[in-house]
Amino acid sequence: MTSGPDERDFIQSIERGFAVLLAFDEERATPTLAELATATGLSRPAVRRILLTLQRLGYVRSEGTRWTLTPRVLSIGQHYSASHAMIELAQPHLLELSAKTGESASLAALDGRDVVYVARVPVRRIMSINVSVGTRIPAFATSMGRVLLAWAPDVVVEEVVAGGLPALTRHTVTDAGEFRAALRQVRSDGWSIVAEELEIGLLSVAAPVRDRTGEVVAALASSMSVGRSSVEELRGEVVPLLLDAAERISADLGHKSSARREGFY
Amino acid sequence: MTSGPDERDFIQSIERGFAVLLAFDEERATPTLAELATATGLSRPAVRRILLTLQRLGYVRSEGTRWTLTPRVLSIGQHYSASHAMIELAQPHLLELSAKTGESASLAALDGRDVVYVARVPVRRIMSINVSVGTRIPAFATSMGRVLLAWAPDVVVEEVVAGGLPALTRHTVTDAGEFRAALRQVRSDGWSIVAEELEIGLLSVAAPVRDRTGEVVAALASSMSVGRSSVEELRGEVVPLLLDAAERISADLGHKSSARREGFY
Repeated sequence: MTSGPDERDFIQSIERGFAVLLAFDEERATPTLAELATATGLSRPAVRRILLTLQRLGYVRSEGTRWTLTPRVLSIGQHYSASHAMIELAQPHLLELSAKTGESASLAALDGRDVVYVARVPVRRIMSINVSVGTRIPAFATSMGRVLLAWAPDVVVEEVVAGGLPALTRHTVTDAGEFRAALRQVRSDGWSIVAEELEIGLLSVAAPVRDRTGEVVAALASSMSVGRSSVEELRGEVVPLLLDAAERISADLGHKSSARREGFY
Repeated sequence: MTSGPDERDFIQSIERGFAVLLAFDEERATPTLAELATATGLSRPAVRRILLTLQRLGYVRSEGTRWTLTPRVLSIGQHYSASHAMIELAQPHLLELSAKTGESASLAALDGRDVVYVARVPVRRIMSINVSVGTRIPAFATSMGRVLLAWAPDVVVEEVVAGGLPALTRHTVTDAGEFRAALRQVRSDGWSIVAEELEIGLLSVAAPVRDRTGEVVAALASSMSVGRSSVEELRGEVVPLLLDAAERISADLGHKSSARREGFY
């Protein structure tokens, strides 16, 4: 990282604190100190001091020899939502889009090579799409990622390409040239449909949300199983609803829709 | 704090890292270094090093002289959800409860004197209840808090009482004796209705969710404006739906409902 801060300005304890906090997951929901040491590569005494610190700050608690995250951890993420007015503004539009389409509606932002769900309205299904606010998925193989990358600076796109375009399914676009062409197509269409590139059976469509300056700051998406819709149905029925909702969120963010209708900046 | 860790085990940099991260909020969405120093009480050089560290870890980014949280912050909270199977298990039940009542459905856990929303299904309203996952509200004046405190150890209840029972509205129960009696009533009823004690116009009803061991681990709630329902309607119509949904989440967590029907352990 050439533009990163000076080594002397980097506080390793903070990095290690987050490393221990993020070592709690589905596979390690209630780890022991030893398991956390293995997961983070830190020594047991180091992990012990970090756990005692995180415990005093209220983020973890011990149950016998096992440790667990407390709900206070959720409050950290809440500060992202509270400091981004878009999340709250988007909520009624997500609800309305979900009601109109009968499918879940999501809002996501780009974080490096991933997209992160920043708001979501789920719907009840036997086969549900198992994501929530904070979930990360690879940007390159998703409609939300394609939308965010289509209007991102070249350097961001090249970082994604350099990170690799692995075949997550047999439908994944893995060729860099083909991938860049797909992004140009999204830019020209104004929306993206991605079918079964992330996971077999998963279909999603996304459109850009712009702020006051015209910058694409989020992607609005509707996703469903292939059994419930086809690419043709999405294009004919969902895309207009999605574009309309994305336009209204953008307008709430202060974006002038006449400028957006020209299709580019 | 008598049972806390030894001072030598406390890593101050970690505390300061979180202090800076949590200083970003609605009022300070894009603070300057100087504003963060004022908010946290830390020196500017200290805040600068922390910001550069958080930037390298991907949690903040700079825009000119201002700083902003990145969506990666949401990923931290995601680890709580991922490590608590209850959140995912509860989701379909929240959706179903919300569909049946036509009102938003929430799941919350106790964190000190607050309850924290751990899952939520919102509904579209002109007058919406503006909370999301991670939002904290005072436990004592809410139906979710009353439910969680009704079955909590005495020491937890006494900590809440010691923290004070301020009159948030003219309806708030502020007398410690009356408050303890309200908790006994919740324990006897098996649910809690709180009307306009947190905020004028807000009505909510909550029921306990129990894990395999019978411990109350969360409160399931339905909330609405007084214009949309009355305490009598809640008792007659919403309470049975809520108890049913709470029972099914508890069952998914491995709780035997026959034991719960006896009403105590």
